[in-house]
Amino acid sequence: MIVKGRHYKTVWLEGSTVYIINQPLLPHKFEIMECPDHQRTARAISNMVIRGAGAIGSAGGFGLAQAVLEAPENDFTAYVDAAYESLAHTRPTAQNLFYSLKRVYEKVREAADPGQARVMAVKEAEAIALEDINACKKIGEIGAALIADNYKILTHCNAGWLAFTDWGTALSPMYVAKRENKNMFVWVDETRPRFQGARLTAWELKEEGIPFAVIADNAAGFYMQRGEVDLVIVGSDRIARNGDVANKIGTYEKAVLARENKIPFYVAAPTATIDWNCAHGGEIPIEERSGEEVTAISGRDEMNTIRSVCIAPEGAAARNPAFDVTPARFITGIITEKGIVKPHELKKLEGKGAA
Amino acid sequence: MIVKGRHYKTVWLEGSTVYIINQPLLPHKFEIMECPDHQRTARAISNMVIRGAGAIGSAGGFGLAQAVLEAPENDFTAYVDAAYESLAHTRPTAQNLFYSLKRVYEKVREAADPGQARVMAVKEAEAIALEDINACKKIGEIGAALIADNYKILTHCNAGWLAFTDWGTALSPMYVAKRENKNMFVWVDETRPRFQGARLTAWELKEEGIPFAVIADNAAGFYMQRGEVDLVIVGSDRIARNGDVANKIGTYEKAVLARENKIPFYVAAPTATIDWNCAHGGEIPIEERSGEEVTAISGRDEMNTIRSVCIAPEGAAARNPAFDVTPARFITGIITEKGIVKPHELKKLEGKGAA
Repeated sequence: MIVKGRHYKTVWLEGSTVYIINQPLLPHKFEIMECPDHQRTARAISNMVIRGAGAIGSAGGFGLAQAVLEAPENDFTAYVDAAYESLAHTRPTAQNLFYSLKRVYEKVREAADPGQARVMAVKEAEAIALEDINACKKIGEIGAALIADNYKILTHCNAGWLAFTDWGTALSPMYVAKRENKNMFVWVDETRPRFQGARLTAWELKEEGIPFAVIADNAAGFYMQRGEVDLVIVGSDRIARNGDVANKIGTYEKAVLARENKIPFYVAAPTATIDWNCAHGGEIPIEERSGEEVTAISGRDEMNTIRSVCIAPEGAAARNPAFDVTPARFITGIITEKGIVKPHELKKLEGKGAA
Repeated sequence: MIVKGRHYKTVWLEGSTVYIINQPLLPHKFEIMECPDHQRTARAISNMVIRGAGAIGSAGGFGLAQAVLEAPENDFTAYVDAAYESLAHTRPTAQNLFYSLKRVYEKVREAADPGQARVMAVKEAEAIALEDINACKKIGEIGAALIADNYKILTHCNAGWLAFTDWGTALSPMYVAKRENKNMFVWVDETRPRFQGARLTAWELKEEGIPFAVIADNAAGFYMQRGEVDLVIVGSDRIARNGDVANKIGTYEKAVLARENKIPFYVAAPTATIDWNCAHGGEIPIEERSGEEVTAISGRDEMNTIRSVCIAPEGAAARNPAFDVTPARFITGIITEKGIVKPHELKKLEGKGAA
C-alpha cells in the first residue's frame, strides 16, 4: 500500500535480506528494518516488529528461505532444521507461521541438492506472500461492493495491510473503493487497550488519503445512534464452524450496538481464518494479557521520545482479555476471498478451492 | 469518605479558608489545596481542581461565604457583588454553582448588617453542602438494597464522592453496602477518553478497600456476556422528563449491552439532576470537546512526573463527544434520594418534598 506516496509491502525479500516495516515505531516513525540473516528475521518476529496473521506468515516463510540461502553445503540439513526450529518458536500460537514454515521446508526436502533447494525455497516463500496479497486484494474487491458513495464506515482494531503482506482485510474494501473513486469517511475506534486503531489504522488511512476520525471506543455507539454509521467492517483472529467470530476485545460490543441500530456488521477474513475443527465460539480460548497494558500507555512526548505513562493508582488491579467472541447472529456477513457468506452458511466454503 | 484511613469531604470551610482535594493530581498524589480567599477558591473551580455537580455547588457556596467574611464594612455590598460575579463565571454551565451562589446571596440580602450576613452566609453554605451529603447518603442507603452479597457490579466514569461533597451517587450504594458488611467486586470501566474510571473511581475504591479491577471500556461487554456482571450502576449529568439519561460518553453502549445480557441497569442521581423543562433526551445538547483529549494522554512517568504522550499519528483527526443519551427503555430504574423509580414513572417525583 501507499506510504509517503510510494508502494510498500509489510515484509519482503531482496537478495538474501528480509525487509520489515518496524511496526512498534508506528505511527511515530516510519522505518524499515533490515534483517540480513534469518536470526535477525526470527528476532523481528518474536519482538513483534511485525505482527498480524498474514504478515507473520510471510515473514516466517522469507526467514526460512533466508536460512536455506545461508546454509553451508557441508552442514545443509542441520542448519536448515535448526533455523526451522528457531523460527517456529518465535510466536508459539501463530497458525500462519507454522503453515508457511512447513510449505517452505517441504520444498527444501523435495529438492535434489542445496542449489535447487535455494531456488525452490525462495520461490515458495514468494508464493506464500503472493497468495496472502491476492486473498486480501480479492476480499477488497468483493467487499468494496458493500460500500456506497459517501458511506461512513466504522472499523475496530487494525485489520489493515500492516497485519497482512498487503491490502489487509477489514480495510481492503475501503482501499479498493477508494481506487474506484468512491468517497467515504472512516470512524476509527481507537481500540483500547493497545490502540491499534488510533496508532495503525489511523496511520494507514492517513497515508492512503482516506478521511477519518479517531474516536474513543465509547463513542462508536453514539455515532451509530445518530445515524452516522452506514456500515461496520472488522477483521477476525479465528472463526468457528458455526460462524462465531473471535476478534479484538470490543468487537462484540460494536456488533451488539450495530444490531440495535440496524447497521450492517461485516467480518472480513481470508478462509484460512476459519477453524473447521472449532464447533462454536465457546471453544475458542481467550488470551488474558497483563493488566499493565491497560494501566500503562506508551506514546510520544513533546520531545518526540516514545515513553510510557501510568494512568491508574499505583498497584491498581486491572483485567485485560485480549479478544472476545461475537456470536454469529450479530454478523450480517463474512467477506472472504471466495465471496461473502452468511455466518450460518459458512460450510458452503469448506473444501471449496481458492477463487 | 475514607482516604489513608481518615474521613474526608471533597471540599470544606474552616474559619475563612476553603480546603479542596486537588483532583487533577489524583490518583498520582493526594493533596489538599488551601484557598485562603474567595479569589483562590474561584480559581480552583475554574481550573477544575474540583469538578462534579455536587462538589462544585458546595465549593461555590463556600467561596461566596468566604467573600462575605472578607468584605470590608465600608464597601460591603460592592465587594460581595463582585465576588458573586467572579464565582458565577468560573464554570458557565454548572447549574449547581448558580443554585448555591443564589442561596448564599439571598441570605446576605436578608441580613440586617454585615455581621449578621457573615454568620448567615457561612450557615447557608454549610447547609448546602450538608444537603448534598445527605442526598448522596440517602441514595446509597436506598441503592444498597439492590446489592446482594458477592455481587459483581460494573460502573462507568466517576460518580463517586469526588464528584459530590461526600458519598457520591453511583458508588454510594457500594459504600453503604460495604458498611453493611456485604462483599462485592467492582468492574471499573476506565472511561476513555479522560479515564475518570481508571483515575478516580479506582482510587476511591482502593482507599475504601473495595476489591475492583480496571478494564478497558471494550471489555465490559465481554464480562457481561460471561455472566460476570450482576448489576450496572452509573451516574448522570442530566435526566429528561421522559427518563432519558445524559451521562459520560459510553454509558449508552453499556446500557445496550446490559439489556442484551439481561443485567439490571441503574442510574443513581439526586432529583436535582432531573430537568423538568427537558421533554426528552433529544433536547439535551451534547458538548463536543477537543479531539486532543482522545489522542493525547496524561499520566505519571517512571520518574513520577505527570506528563502527556500522544498515541495517534501527528495531525490525525479525532472526534470527542463528551456525553451520550441513554434512552429510558434501557434503564431498569433511577435511584434518587426520594426512592427508586422506573424512568417512565419519573413524574411521581415532581414536586415531591425532600425525603
